[in-house]
Amino acid sequence: MFQRTNKLLIDLPEPDYGDKKAALVVQELLGGKFGELSTLNNYLFQSFNFRERKKLKPYYDLVSSITAEELGHVELVSHTINLLFKDVSDVPFDVNDTALRGAVAFPHPKHFIHSANTSLPIDATGNSWTGDNVFSSGNLVLDLLHNFFLEIGARTHKMRVYEMTDHPTAREMIGYLLVRGGTHVVAYQKAIESLTGVSLGKLLPIPDVSNKKFDTAKKFEDQGLGNVLYNWNDVGDYLGIETIFTGTHPETNASLIVKKGTPIGGKMPDLDSLPEFFAPGLDRDDYTRVAKHLMNKL
Amino acid sequence: MFQRTNKLLIDLPEPDYGDKKAALVVQELLGGKFGELSTLNNYLFQSFNFRERKKLKPYYDLVSSITAEELGHVELVSHTINLLFKDVSDVPFDVNDTALRGAVAFPHPKHFIHSANTSLPIDATGNSWTGDNVFSSGNLVLDLLHNFFLEIGARTHKMRVYEMTDHPTAREMIGYLLVRGGTHVVAYQKAIESLTGVSLGKLLPIPDVSNKKFDTAKKFEDQGLGNVLYNWNDVGDYLGIETIFTGTHPETNASLIVKKGTPIGGKMPDLDSLPEFFAPGLDRDDYTRVAKHLMNKL
Amino acid sequence: MFQRTNKLLIDLPEPDYGDKKAALVVQELLGGKFGELSTLNNYLFQSFNFRERKKLKPYYDLVSSITAEELGHVELVSHTINLLFKDVSDVPFDVNDTALRGAVAFPHPKHFIHSANTSLPIDATGNSWTGDNVFSSGNLVLDLLHNFFLEIGARTHKMRVYEMTDHPTAREMIGYLLVRGGTHVVAYQKAIESLTGVSLGKLLPIPDVSNKKFDTAKKFEDQGLGNVLYNWNDVGDYLGIETIFTGTHPETNASLIVKKGTPIGGKMPDLDSLPEFFAPGLDRDDYTRVAKHLMNKL
Amino acid sequence: MFQRTNKLLIDLPEPDYGDKKAALVVQELLGGKFGELSTLNNYLFQSFNFRERKKLKPYYDLVSSITAEELGHVELVSHTINLLFKDVSDVPFDVNDTALRGAVAFPHPKHFIHSANTSLPIDATGNSWTGDNVFSSGNLVLDLLHNFFLEIGARTHKMRVYEMTDHPTAREMIGYLLVRGGTHVVAYQKAIESLTGVSLGKLLPIPDVSNKKFDTAKKFEDQGLGNVLYNWNDVGDYLGIETIFTGTHPETNASLIVKKGTPIGGKMPDLDSLPEFFAPGLDRDDYTRVAKHLMNKL
Amino acid sequence: MFQRTNKLLIDLPEPDYGDKKAALVVQELLGGKFGELSTLNNYLFQSFNFRERKKLKPYYDLVSSITAEELGHVELVSHTINLLFKDVSDVPFDVNDTALRGAVAFPHPKHFIHSANTSLPIDATGNSWTGDNVFSSGNLVLDLLHNFFLEIGARTHKMRVYEMTDHPTAREMIGYLLVRGGTHVVAYQKAIESLTGVSLGKLLPIPDVSNKKFDTAKKFEDQGLGNVLYNWNDVGDYLGIETIFTGTHPETNASLIVKKGTPIGGKMPDLDSLPEFFAPGLDRDDYTRVAKHLMNKL
Amino acid sequence: MFQRTNKLLIDLPEPDYGDKKAALVVQELLGGKFGELSTLNNYLFQSFNFRERKKLKPYYDLVSSITAEELGHVELVSHTINLLFKDVSDVPFDVNDTALRGAVAFPHPKHFIHSANTSLPIDATGNSWTGDNVFSSGNLVLDLLHNFFLEIGARTHKMRVYEMTDHPTAREMIGYLLVRGGTHVVAYQKAIESLTGVSLGKLLPIPDVSNKKFDTAKKFEDQGLGNVLYNWNDVGDYLGIETIFTGTHPETNASLIVKKGTPIGGKMPDLDSLPEFFAPGLDRDDYTRVAKHLMNKL
Repeated sequence: MFQRTNKLLIDLPEPDYGDKKAALVVQELLGGKFGELSTLNNYLFQSFNFRERKKLKPYYDLVSSITAEELGHVELVSHTINLLFKDVSDVPFDVNDTALRGAVAFPHPKHFIHSANTSLPIDATGNSWTGDNVFSSGNLVLDLLHNFFLEIGARTHKMRVYEMTDHPTAREMIGYLLVRGGTHVVAYQKAIESLTGVSLGKLLPIPDVSNKKFDTAKKFEDQGLGNVLYNWNDVGDYLGIETIFTGTHPETNASLIVKKGTPIGGKMPDLDSLPEFFAPGLDRDDYTRVAKHLMNKL
Repeated sequence: MFQRTNKLLIDLPEPDYGDKKAALVVQELLGGKFGELSTLNNYLFQSFNFRERKKLKPYYDLVSSITAEELGHVELVSHTINLLFKDVSDVPFDVNDTALRGAVAFPHPKHFIHSANTSLPIDATGNSWTGDNVFSSGNLVLDLLHNFFLEIGARTHKMRVYEMTDHPTAREMIGYLLVRGGTHVVAYQKAIESLTGVSLGKLLPIPDVSNKKFDTAKKFEDQGLGNVLYNWNDVGDYLGIETIFTGTHPETNASLIVKKGTPIGGKMPDLDSLPEFFAPGLDRDDYTRVAKHLMNKL
Repeated sequence: MFQRTNKLLIDLPEPDYGDKKAALVVQELLGGKFGELSTLNNYLFQSFNFRERKKLKPYYDLVSSITAEELGHVELVSHTINLLFKDVSDVPFDVNDTALRGAVAFPHPKHFIHSANTSLPIDATGNSWTGDNVFSSGNLVLDLLHNFFLEIGARTHKMRVYEMTDHPTAREMIGYLLVRGGTHVVAYQKAIESLTGVSLGKLLPIPDVSNKKFDTAKKFEDQGLGNVLYNWNDVGDYLGIETIFTGTHPETNASLIVKKGTPIGGKMPDLDSLPEFFAPGLDRDDYTRVAKHLMNKL
Repeated sequence: MFQRTNKLLIDLPEPDYGDKKAALVVQELLGGKFGELSTLNNYLFQSFNFRERKKLKPYYDLVSSITAEELGHVELVSHTINLLFKDVSDVPFDVNDTALRGAVAFPHPKHFIHSANTSLPIDATGNSWTGDNVFSSGNLVLDLLHNFFLEIGARTHKMRVYEMTDHPTAREMIGYLLVRGGTHVVAYQKAIESLTGVSLGKLLPIPDVSNKKFDTAKKFEDQGLGNVLYNWNDVGDYLGIETIFTGTHPETNASLIVKKGTPIGGKMPDLDSLPEFFAPGLDRDDYTRVAKHLMNKL
Repeated sequence: MFQRTNKLLIDLPEPDYGDKKAALVVQELLGGKFGELSTLNNYLFQSFNFRERKKLKPYYDLVSSITAEELGHVELVSHTINLLFKDVSDVPFDVNDTALRGAVAFPHPKHFIHSANTSLPIDATGNSWTGDNVFSSGNLVLDLLHNFFLEIGARTHKMRVYEMTDHPTAREMIGYLLVRGGTHVVAYQKAIESLTGVSLGKLLPIPDVSNKKFDTAKKFEDQGLGNVLYNWNDVGDYLGIETIFTGTHPETNASLIVKKGTPIGGKMPDLDSLPEFFAPGLDRDDYTRVAKHLMNKL
Repeated sequence: MFQRTNKLLIDLPEPDYGDKKAALVVQELLGGKFGELSTLNNYLFQSFNFRERKKLKPYYDLVSSITAEELGHVELVSHTINLLFKDVSDVPFDVNDTALRGAVAFPHPKHFIHSANTSLPIDATGNSWTGDNVFSSGNLVLDLLHNFFLEIGARTHKMRVYEMTDHPTAREMIGYLLVRGGTHVVAYQKAIESLTGVSLGKLLPIPDVSNKKFDTAKKFEDQGLGNVLYNWNDVGDYLGIETIFTGTHPETNASLIVKKGTPIGGKMPDLDSLPEFFAPGLDRDDYTRVAKHLMNKL
């Protein structure tokens, strides 16, 4: 069972300007094979499909609780994309003004036709995310090894997209996710170690560049976010992760910590109306009516 | 931001026997075009992409909060599929015993090769769920009309799958989801009505058969679950839904109610190991070691 | 521009019994790579995209007019599938009766969930037809060579599906389409010959079995339907085909004939309601109301 | 059964110049999820699959006859794309001239490799149209509600593409289709109203911008094309639509009219040869030979 | 550059009987996500794309040479599928005999329509192999880790399919590939160890069941085939693998050996004609003509 | 069974400069519907699936041996793509330098995220190659006719891509493949002729432009490479092709020749490391360690 609150995991910088083409490549981190929809759904299905969840509680708790964080990652990348599409509409608006003529200069116009310049469950090429990206074999060591590999692949893609744009909002998000994804790499490494006795820690980091080299990741590493797992609820579920996520970080030697609950979180950005997209497509009278409606009810 | 707790939305009946072929058709309700992964991701992306979320708070709150319930629906259908695969392994196990020979009699062997007889993000034909199923135009009336149509399509598919199996676990789940999905139909109908003044209530139900005709749905209707929306958190977010989900139910005339928080929820089923699938693939020594590990840490 | 009349190309035998599994393999002839949706859309797009349609009128006329026939083929296969799904509903109907339990024995349940036991734009495996199947290079000889190959591939698939069912409705349709498809093979062979001087006639038939060997094809061959092309309109368009479709048939030596207009056509079958599918989902009162409505207006 | 004549639905302006990148976004209106191939195939399959076509003749007639118009829409968009690719070949032509070097600046080179700068059954991203876009549930109210939603979604996409190019040929086509699509929205609205008593007319238009605001649509609205349905044949079929398409237009209050037959139609554009594409790939001798051939036969 | 000889890697037992449904599940080992087409194309592309192939010769040599073996694996699985389709045609053959009626009992009829009961590049569900299955990041450690994971996933799928059929031909092939695939697991493990100093050997085997438990694998293990790598040519290329594939096997402690050239190989099975499939579709006269032709030329 | 040697089919010119956008369109010749992966896999599967390979040895030998050449073609196109991506990395490298910012100007960033600027099994639109492109009907004449058509389609695409770039490396490769592909067209034409008595030679070339018109193809034609088939092994397999590939070339009247073995081949290019891609991701210490490792072993 899931709950939702109206917060992002972190405050995203409100941009002064957009970078729509950067938005398109950031889509890879959302809907690509190694994007957040993939990590989310892998752990979601592995948690559903876990065999012997009682006997193997720590491992079940690990994939179950990380799932909740991945939902927040999906959300964070989506909002980043939306902010990168920041634009100002010409006013007054006339449909004959060819206001969207810029769309033809894009690799594809999906965000101009299917959405009103907002995120979609697609990758950077414009192809939709697919359940083919989910691996759930039921063999615990194999699933953990997969997750270890998946997180490292996801890290590699984040590092490359980081190098494609220096937009502050994109980099803030990627820096944060490099740190949190790095934590997940360690979590799966520790899980494999506790289960098999084999430590993959000395392989890390892959690629062989520390998160601390990335300006926006360094900030979050310095806050200690690379050493923390949350259990993502306030009722004491999933605390079996404490038996896995223990000892020290293989790269930094920092002590690993399990925190109860969730991060405090950041504010939810608002998106302006874009009349040339007919989004949300309401006029002043509509807003007044909704506001009145709202007041009457409350 | 999302939280997770280790509960299902309802108690699912632990089956005395499995029905693997029924499991395959139930997959449509999970990964089909009108399955729970589709409702989930539609509302998830619409909530991310909402323009003017402050001015239009009730509508933003509606799609945002229902998203959390849909996560629970995805989870519930997955666990139902897993229970329908109930089986007993022969002991002792020898890999040369052709233990999985039955797989060749299935429409496809994905649950025998890609998973250990557990759920996958696929439809009843075996094709993976795809982001093509997400509609997020940014035009509020159009998105709401889409959601109204989507929920009715999903209801139709549930009704047909209900007629394909009388397995108690499957029917309990479908009955529950018919009721909750019916509530979502009404929620979107009310949203359209409050925004445009047009009531689509008299179109309902589509198809023209009451939930109460379905044995397992009737129980949940009688508990009043067809008239309730939750806000899916304990911090007071998303309560703008109270201004939309108000008045009476178009079919039953029952008063519509918004409840804070979530349902109490039901217990999480456990799944036995299946050595012929090498799942979870651990032996008694492994379990002992994990248990010892667990004790040392706690 | 297209017109439509409420007739099938031929009378399809109303079946005494259905054969639902045969319906599923017949889908290949509708939505498969070499199915009628493919021939239709290949010629449709080639006719749109034809360069120098005035100078090369006979060839333009050929692909343009055959397109209209292919629409009728698509229609004919769809109706055949619908008749193969013939069934009788239990009356009275109760949704708790597990009326669709038989669906789980099928290779896939798409016709039980997505449609009410009627045709879909899918192949025999259950995968949707795709525009990838369209070839429209713009090079005339290459497009004609493609079409020659496509029709022969389509013939091969029809011959194999013919051998999968002896249901009279399916065989009537396949026999008819073998003859008409065979005519299209000859039409493209003649087009290549008139354009290049090279006759591919001695390659025919591929596979090396005469249509006359197929019981239901023989009837239509005997009616001379293997030697006739229509121009598919009553206003004299597309008669340039007369300069291509001339001389004798490479297998039978029969004289080739161009006829103006269309075949007389056959009756349109009706499909009963199936309450267990909620299709069309109306009750007696609804019908009465519609009937009254109808009378008032006319 | 279908007939074809060598006309477009309207005269398309012969362009003075091309706009190839606009052609690529216009592809969405042809092969996109809400493009004309989708409306065509939805109604085509719903007409095949209609249950109780006699008792429910007006509704059967509606989806059946609109299908024929949609074929003309597919044709119209394709020809528009072809005109937008207008170009002049350098003469004399040498294959070593890198004549197609411009192709690398396009979002994808499909129209430069798979076709000779002509239309393909793909969307604006370059992905092929798929039968997944067809909805044919067999439940009449649900199918009609789907069609109502589909036409509105299609309208939204047309409005957005309209804003992406001011090319006269593209805008003429989109203006015309906005008007005709708007008529189809009303047709399905009226169908739902006559069947259920519920009028969705007050929801219209969605998005909330009148067709009359679009310069090229206004012309066709002024000609009354927004109030007319055709039966698309000369033999009196499908006239049951007269009982549905009656009363007044929900936005304009104009009287709704059913006309027999089809529009008069416009001329079919010709496309020049493009030697750098080897299309049609014939030389002067070939044309002479074809011309002689033609004369000998006629 | 590649050479080909007319041999299989091993002798496959000529079956006394077929098992067509087993053939369908064996397709997973050919065209599935973890099938031989995937291992082949992963190593093929990684060998093309290798950066610093001179400095890192041993690793380049490893992925390059294993590619050649994977081609033989693809070939071996295909021939196994073909042998599993063994059947006897009724003679004399009449197309009206419904000879292929059995096809409707299969999960899908692709092998009855698209091929003449022979292998296709599809998985066990009937979906085509896709290049999406190729991973070629360019980061050497990541690519090696991927390959280690891929081979283990492939091993798991082979183990499950082994349990689905006891057909001697299928089991001979799977037994052999378990052994050879196991060798590849070790090869990638050793490559990672030599490059990073981290040994993953103690994780093996995953799943935790020795190849020796599988009857048909034991035979090949006993022949020492689990400890050998070939360089797959006679000109001394790719011998850098000797620096990687050295020391002892992590499970068996056997010494690892590099052999020059290829295995001796086994005989190529022949497939009878199947007239009901029109395959190869020639009659006695044709064969005589071909034979005469052959004699004249040689 | 296959062997591999560390050579390309020809020497590719080492470029002085890259042309990354050209690389993207060249991908069509690798992973497109008519690309080298398609010709490869068609012949590979047809060789596996050949019925009556003994009686029809010349035809079996033809498709079997050409397969080996196609592997080399796949390899050659991949290396061409890799050379077209030639670039120089800035040194020293800092991950914060936005070194990959140029990626956003590309039609899609797959080669910047999924690979380190190297080839992928995708087409020019960025979609993955799929097994749907394989045709293996089992009817010999039909398969040969398909191959004849496929090679001509592939030739057409090569000719168009040739016109998109004048990069010397790309043109060298395309020129060579036009010649070799042209030889394959003739090989299939001869095969059809020997089997059926029908010569398709007078249709050639399609499109109607001689290879000799293409500067880089002329060189290879002049070397006689358009008249030669190899048997692709040194053990005398597949020499039945001598009975098919005989007589004279239909365009040039040159004598057709079968050569034993393979071409001599060209050198294998090396690719520099690209630190901004973390490829291969090793530092100087790593190389030293590998070198030492190598020396110790040899």
